[in-house]
Amino acid sequence: MKRITREPVKIWMVGSIGIDDIKTRTVERKDLMGGSLPFSTAASSFFAKTGAVGVVGSDFPSAFSRRWQAFGIDLAGVQRVTGSTFRWACEYDKNMIDRTTLKTELGVFAAFMPELPASYKHAPFVLLGNIQPELQLHVLMQAEGAKFVALDTMNLWIEIARPALRKVIRKVNLLTLNDGEARLLTGKWNLVDCADALLKMGPSFVVIKKGEHGALLFSKKSVFIVPAYPVRKLSDPTGAGDSYAGAFMGYLARAGHVTERLLREALVYASVVASFGVEGFSLERFERLTMSEIDKRVRELKRMMTA
Amino acid sequence: MKRITREPVKIWMVGSIGIDDIKTRTVERKDLMGGSLPFSTAASSFFAKTGAVGVVGSDFPSAFSRRWQAFGIDLAGVQRVTGSTFRWACEYDKNMIDRTTLKTELGVFAAFMPELPASYKHAPFVLLGNIQPELQLHVLMQAEGAKFVALDTMNLWIEIARPALRKVIRKVNLLTLNDGEARLLTGKWNLVDCADALLKMGPSFVVIKKGEHGALLFSKKSVFIVPAYPVRKLSDPTGAGDSYAGAFMGYLARAGHVTERLLREALVYASVVASFGVEGFSLERFERLTMSEIDKRVRELKRMMTA
Repeated sequence: MKRITREPVKIWMVGSIGIDDIKTRTVERKDLMGGSLPFSTAASSFFAKTGAVGVVGSDFPSAFSRRWQAFGIDLAGVQRVTGSTFRWACEYDKNMIDRTTLKTELGVFAAFMPELPASYKHAPFVLLGNIQPELQLHVLMQAEGAKFVALDTMNLWIEIARPALRKVIRKVNLLTLNDGEARLLTGKWNLVDCADALLKMGPSFVVIKKGEHGALLFSKKSVFIVPAYPVRKLSDPTGAGDSYAGAFMGYLARAGHVTERLLREALVYASVVASFGVEGFSLERFERLTMSEIDKRVRELKRMMTA
Repeated sequence: MKRITREPVKIWMVGSIGIDDIKTRTVERKDLMGGSLPFSTAASSFFAKTGAVGVVGSDFPSAFSRRWQAFGIDLAGVQRVTGSTFRWACEYDKNMIDRTTLKTELGVFAAFMPELPASYKHAPFVLLGNIQPELQLHVLMQAEGAKFVALDTMNLWIEIARPALRKVIRKVNLLTLNDGEARLLTGKWNLVDCADALLKMGPSFVVIKKGEHGALLFSKKSVFIVPAYPVRKLSDPTGAGDSYAGAFMGYLARAGHVTERLLREALVYASVVASFGVEGFSLERFERLTMSEIDKRVRELKRMMTA
């Protein structure tokens, strides 16, 4: 878990930071580090020096910060302000996919205004995680050195902030969303039609995530279909999509440039990293995950994909 | 569409033969040739001489028989008896996946007792399509030359004829079912756990179909994940699972033997053939489908699968 911490940030990510209570059929866990940012940055940290942009309240445990920092993540972009950290609670159905949100308390996240530390401004890779599109735009404008920007979003923003969302989408290189969100945003059902419509909105690449069914990468010229790694010991699916996006972008940041070939390889790594993440609660599985475990499972997944 | 018809049957299939009414949001079609057997045999006919075992009533249009036979399929195993052909009607939801059954009239299918023509008895490959497990067993006992037998089933038999179904499962080499059926039959949710349980029931291979999300092939030693080909022009998904199973087994029958490599290749071909089938109603797309179109789409799908 000891990683180099003095190198410059190659990629930064913005997103939510929370304290979660998670209930499954067999386990109930309280006060877990959650939100999109811990998952995305931890997943990215296996590949490249990653900076985090977010906000926590005065109640955010210092133990969480220490554990997060142990991934070698730069936390210069995480503001600590007076008030309560974003809190969220959910209960999973026995299918471990459908969930009921039991609590959402925005706390300091409600007035969050992301600011980019000077040391992140020249980072070439950016992941705009799932926050208000206006804030995604605000922080992106500060990123002078951004060369490849990916955007993640969710139903809520499509419903209540569509014009702002469309504005950010026009400025990014890659858009990632799940199948339901792609349908909501485009008004089309067929995912190939959705991808056509999304590519017309501006990005060169669209990644449609389908959870346990994998993901599809679309460009104007090609399609790549990547399966999810079949997980045997699913503990907690929370954050899987964020880990997926984080590992994907971290892999590209390590490469330092983007080609079709690298995008495909990055998605296979993303699938594998996310599959490890759901084997534990919060960042627990990532905390004892090694690069050789990742490489081994990547080889395994590739064998499963080879006709 | 002219195919060699004098060669011996390499594979035979049993299943239902019906007359369908299909309604989608945009199109309503009546009196279509349907049931599992026309789809499975037509899909198989692209690869190997295929025999059909089923029953039709005296109202079965001779035009249907002619169109079916035009695939080069041997219809010696299709009994024509006095009474009405099995009739089925359904309406698709706008997602083109969920459907409501509007009519099920078994007709002559209710008293169906499959008998194997002498000319099929030495065929090495068999697909026991979705009919009562007792009848699958009855006809399998007549198949002296069967070397590789695949079994397809459905929710209904798992619910009302589980002991008989378990008995047939013990006798086959490969079991194919969809994800919901795998869960119902095993009582497990995780598909890897389902596959473990199904392999313990006897077959060497299990194929779990996930519709538009592709399929998984499990053996005791390995997993292969094959995506569905992303269809742009979905007209009618009826029979897709039957076309899938038919093309898969037809491909193996053409090869004449079974290896892990061939099983994987067969699943890619099955995915492609099924993707063509849903572009039209009934067998309409298959009637103008060429082997070079299939090969071209197989190459395309393989590029979509290559990291």
